[in-house]
Amino acid sequence: QSCDILSSAFFRYQTIIFGFREEVLKFHPKFKAGSLTELDVNVKNKCDQYPYLGMDESYNLTISSSGATLNSNSVWGALRGIETFSQLVLQRSKDMFTVNGTTIVDYPRFQHRGLLLDTSRHFLDVSIIKQNLLAMSQSKFNVFHWHIVDDQSFPYTSNNFPDMATMGAYDSKHIYTQDQIAEIIEFARILGIRVIPEFDSPGHSQSWGKSIKDLLTKCYSSGKPNGQYGPIDPSLETSYGFLSKFFAEIAKVFPDHYVHLGGDEVNFDCWKSNPNITAFMKQKDFGTDYAKLEEYYMQRLLEIVSGVKKGYMIWQEVVDNGAKVNPDTIVEVWKNGFHTELSIITFRGYKTLLSSCWYLSDISYGIDWPKYYNCDPHNFIGTAEQKKLVIGGETCMWGEYVDNTNVLSRTWPRASVVAERLWSAQNVKDANAAAPRLEEHRCRMIKRGFPAEAVNGPGYCFQEYSIHEPV
Amino acid sequence: QSCDILSSAFFRYQTIIFGFREEVLKFHPKFKAGSLTELDVNVKNKCDQYPYLGMDESYNLTISSSGATLNSNSVWGALRGIETFSQLVLQRSKDMFTVNGTTIVDYPRFQHRGLLLDTSRHFLDVSIIKQNLLAMSQSKFNVFHWHIVDDQSFPYTSNNFPDMATMGAYDSKHIYTQDQIAEIIEFARILGIRVIPEFDSPGHSQSWGKSIKDLLTKCYSSGKPNGQYGPIDPSLETSYGFLSKFFAEIAKVFPDHYVHLGGDEVNFDCWKSNPNITAFMKQKDFGTDYAKLEEYYMQRLLEIVSGVKKGYMIWQEVVDNGAKVNPDTIVEVWKNGFHTELSIITFRGYKTLLSSCWYLSDISYGIDWPKYYNCDPHNFIGTAEQKKLVIGGETCMWGEYVDNTNVLSRTWPRASVVAERLWSAQNVKDANAAAPRLEEHRCRMIKRGFPAEAVNGPGYCFQEYSIHEPV
Repeated sequence: QSCDILSSAFFRYQTIIFGFREEVLKFHPKFKAGSLTELDVNVKNKCDQYPYLGMDESYNLTISSSGATLNSNSVWGALRGIETFSQLVLQRSKDMFTVNGTTIVDYPRFQHRGLLLDTSRHFLDVSIIKQNLLAMSQSKFNVFHWHIVDDQSFPYTSNNFPDMATMGAYDSKHIYTQDQIAEIIEFARILGIRVIPEFDSPGHSQSWGKSIKDLLTKCYSSGKPNGQYGPIDPSLETSYGFLSKFFAEIAKVFPDHYVHLGGDEVNFDCWKSNPNITAFMKQKDFGTDYAKLEEYYMQRLLEIVSGVKKGYMIWQEVVDNGAKVNPDTIVEVWKNGFHTELSIITFRGYKTLLSSCWYLSDISYGIDWPKYYNCDPHNFIGTAEQKKLVIGGETCMWGEYVDNTNVLSRTWPRASVVAERLWSAQNVKDANAAAPRLEEHRCRMIKRGFPAEAVNGPGYCFQEYSIHEPV
Repeated sequence: QSCDILSSAFFRYQTIIFGFREEVLKFHPKFKAGSLTELDVNVKNKCDQYPYLGMDESYNLTISSSGATLNSNSVWGALRGIETFSQLVLQRSKDMFTVNGTTIVDYPRFQHRGLLLDTSRHFLDVSIIKQNLLAMSQSKFNVFHWHIVDDQSFPYTSNNFPDMATMGAYDSKHIYTQDQIAEIIEFARILGIRVIPEFDSPGHSQSWGKSIKDLLTKCYSSGKPNGQYGPIDPSLETSYGFLSKFFAEIAKVFPDHYVHLGGDEVNFDCWKSNPNITAFMKQKDFGTDYAKLEEYYMQRLLEIVSGVKKGYMIWQEVVDNGAKVNPDTIVEVWKNGFHTELSIITFRGYKTLLSSCWYLSDISYGIDWPKYYNCDPHNFIGTAEQKKLVIGGETCMWGEYVDNTNVLSRTWPRASVVAERLWSAQNVKDANAAAPRLEEHRCRMIKRGFPAEAVNGPGYCFQEYSIHEPV
């Protein structure tokens, strides 16, 4: 069938597998057990346009001397299967490629397999984000969690509020235009990767306040504003007016059903200092429980986002602080003590994602990937129903210490061990058995042009990374 | 005067300062305080060919509206001064460059300011080594300590023993040919950087044994060789015959007066298991003191290297184990407890280098450079005479977890804080004051095309690193 996702994949993988040379695609007569001239790809359902939560990524792959067939229900399964096929083809010499006969029945254990990049603490070029998306597709990740803005900078160029980038970005070169955002979403779509942007509030929003007047809470000292600003001011109706207009735009710009609304690390000190907020607390009968104020803010925000027909993800604090959120909220667990947290959150009936044990930014000397590999999102006390509410996880590369210079080498291939945890069956968990697979995967990534760093100590790849001659 | 080092530097720095555009070198009439059309470089002494320990790197630089003059005794001082000048010139707009008036009297605190790369645990491309040398010159490092071979692989292609690379390298692509080694030495020479190769023995030499028969000690279990090999066999005259021929070649290939002979981490277990060595110990009256055997080996080796008119560096264990070495040996301190070690080694009258506190390979999360910056090689108890014996230090990027993909970003700009410690006066030690200098230096490195990573937390450079468009 005609489908842009498939035709793009066919072209891309011919290059990935065989290099840029047309001639090697020809029949090779010397192969002893049979010659494979094509992979027969059959997709049952019509071509989806965008990947989505719960898309069918299963596929069956059969390779024998009489032919190779890939069957899937959806184009997403076809994409995952073609990647697998590409990893099975080995280059033996300049013009000799071989593939072993095999039968593979494959599908993901979890629906949501994400990777977070942070473009606020340090800006990342569009080309780096695209390279990262390509790398993700080779480990079968399906969600790019784009932590696009934060306290430090606001690189998102809004149509309705262009000053947010003009005044909130590091400078005029450190921004993403609408065209660039569309380019990234399209690049991800073709790879079967969802793009979920995070616009974190009411905390982590200092950069928003550079342009939006009266959005942030004024902090007080000795009865007067002290020039500092806190989280978004939840006592002002103007805040919700702004948020309505802003998220109406976001809902249009990002096609995925979900948007991440943050909600983490809200510091109450500034709220406590502000007399208008004190008066608002009294009016609303919140007593001195600022978690109620946070809940009030988040529920208003969730209503706004529901109103534009989006689903939402939030960080765990929102529910930790006792806020009631809509039943279809996806709660992302990121703090230590996640075993207990997952029990509690799923007991309360929320869908959840784990990221606590997958912070790739926390580097240390030596072989550190087994600690990521050994972490299982079902390792908590709960019923089968509770376990089902864990829809996956995300590995996070926070941006404090990475930028264009090192984000790819620091993310890869370490992220791939999380990808395996999220895709493969629960009993695929032997780190000793995974080590050579990881080594092979790293060298394959290097062959494909990614600066995937050494993770298993001394060694080499047949083809090393070269800054001058990428494949 | 005519001097290839200077003419090369003039060409290089025109590009570094002004980019590739000829037209910007022309007189710019709009500058308010005066226009600078040239830097007048005066070198007193004749053009040296190779940099050496103790070369004069001092220079005076004067910039005013009436002209800019750089005076030095040697070309090495001129190189350091031109680098300083290049850092003073700031690009204000496309065709506008400015430089403040200043007078600088500058010279290094320590003679030996080194950086170690390890090409055995992982191979590094010649292009990466050259980029690293360029980066070194921008931080005024003057020694490339090339830990070229080790247990894991032997990429050095020997003229006399070509099998050492053929059988000892990871594979036939992971080698340095004589031409490539000459290319690296020449590239370093032009930058005023000495290349000191390390051929570590008697331990760390497993890869040597792949080709040189009977060189390594056979380890025994239950009275029989068990197939394992230990350090070089010090009981066999054939070992010294090989070493004589091998180091005669090394003496010719590497022009620097010094060669690093290693001598660290010699494990005595295999020696203890071997009956021939037991007999040799008895014959030599060493009792059961295997440090005496090590001393015997090292002294024979030092004699061999003295015989080919080379000086030598060794790791601290050789003298720690009680071995007497020649009085002109340079002892490199790398273990913890270096304050005491430096006292002891200088008390015994040896010249010494510090590297213990400058292991860049030991990564950790967050801002880690102040720990390197705060380490001072004179921070030990000793007389002024003892302090003088500390001729400098080396920062080490061991190769277990770095290769082409990440060695540059992980080394830079962290190595630069060690460079400042080794060049600047002892009282330049305020990390808070150094932080913005380091930030500026990182962004300058990025502008010059190096992937120098973020080291101070969130932020940005006016020009970010780009894998597609290096300057």
